[in-house]
Amino acid sequence: MAHIGIQGGIPGIVGAFTFRPETAKPMRELAEILLRGPSTLTSAEREGIAAFVSFRNDCRFCQLSHSAAAAEHRGGTETDYEWIEALKANPDEANVSTKMKALLRIAGKVREGGKRVNETDIAAARTQGATDIEIHDTVLIAAAFCMYNRYVDGLATWQPEAPAEYRLMGKRMAHEGYTRQAPEVREAAARK
Amino acid sequence: MAHIGIQGGIPGIVGAFTFRPETAKPMRELAEILLRGPSTLTSAEREGIAAFVSFRNDCRFCQLSHSAAAAEHRGGTETDYEWIEALKANPDEANVSTKMKALLRIAGKVREGGKRVNETDIAAARTQGATDIEIHDTVLIAAAFCMYNRYVDGLATWQPEAPAEYRLMGKRMAHEGYTRQAPEVREAAARK
Repeated sequence: MAHIGIQGGIPGIVGAFTFRPETAKPMRELAEILLRGPSTLTSAEREGIAAFVSFRNDCRFCQLSHSAAAAEHRGGTETDYEWIEALKANPDEANVSTKMKALLRIAGKVREGGKRVNETDIAAARTQGATDIEIHDTVLIAAAFCMYNRYVDGLATWQPEAPAEYRLMGKRMAHEGYTRQAPEVREAAARK
Repeated sequence: MAHIGIQGGIPGIVGAFTFRPETAKPMRELAEILLRGPSTLTSAEREGIAAFVSFRNDCRFCQLSHSAAAAEHRGGTETDYEWIEALKANPDEANVSTKMKALLRIAGKVREGGKRVNETDIAAARTQGATDIEIHDTVLIAAAFCMYNRYVDGLATWQPEAPAEYRLMGKRMAHEGYTRQAPEVREAAARK
């Protein structure tokens, strides 16, 4: 059971968003811009960074839902789901560009603490072709998931068990985005 | 020097906001709601939580600017500045309500990781009169500063040395808020 009176049956962060719509609005907008807005990084790559940071932060809800979103952006085949599992487990050996590997190393350091990122990490990303805005967005995605992960687990939000539920969420996140009202919330509002 | 091409002379997070206005908008709005929006916690208390988390995260820029904002919300006297220094150094012995002490313990745990918060921490806060929304906002302020702190330090943003600069920032943060355009940014835009 959640630590506070969040309406039951609404999964993870969506339950917390329903509890406090005022703060939900900017939190949803930030995710939308970072993960689905215009960028030279694909949405699969950006969701991959989000899933990787959430995995290292041991946040099951964010880790599984953003893994699914990453896979769904690539087409949603079993190969795509295997791709994101391999990325999280060992980013240095993942089937991603050398630029993405350098960005994932930066994301991993941001997760540990901002000051852990050093000139060498930045230079390595630049050598692989990363632009300033790609580095910026990598740092901010990693930082933002240090917020989302703590929000989800700090409130002990309710989370579905079944992997199929996360695949459904991932499909919606990838194709409908973060600022639309989730069906769970519309239904919850209708029951009020 | 910052890791990316942020215009010089704009302090800390404001420089990063100027570099990427799209993500700055929701990040500013979130701070405004959490720290200055309607709440049964005073803005001094909420800025105190922000300053405490930033202090533990060793983020000098956020720690000093939000300490100043907390002190300015109380009147900005030397006594107010001493109050926030004492709160950061030892929240259990600080001159705050027993409810705030319980909330600061929750904030400290969220900083370490969301799963660190347990039923006992929540029950202790409730015993001291904390409401669900106060617990929610405490968790989210702590989580959000785990983002802001990593953003500021992960990009190695430029930061003023002089304490007086932070007092000036704190005054603006407390009395003008987070969604107005900072004078530094207006001046930077005019120079473009």
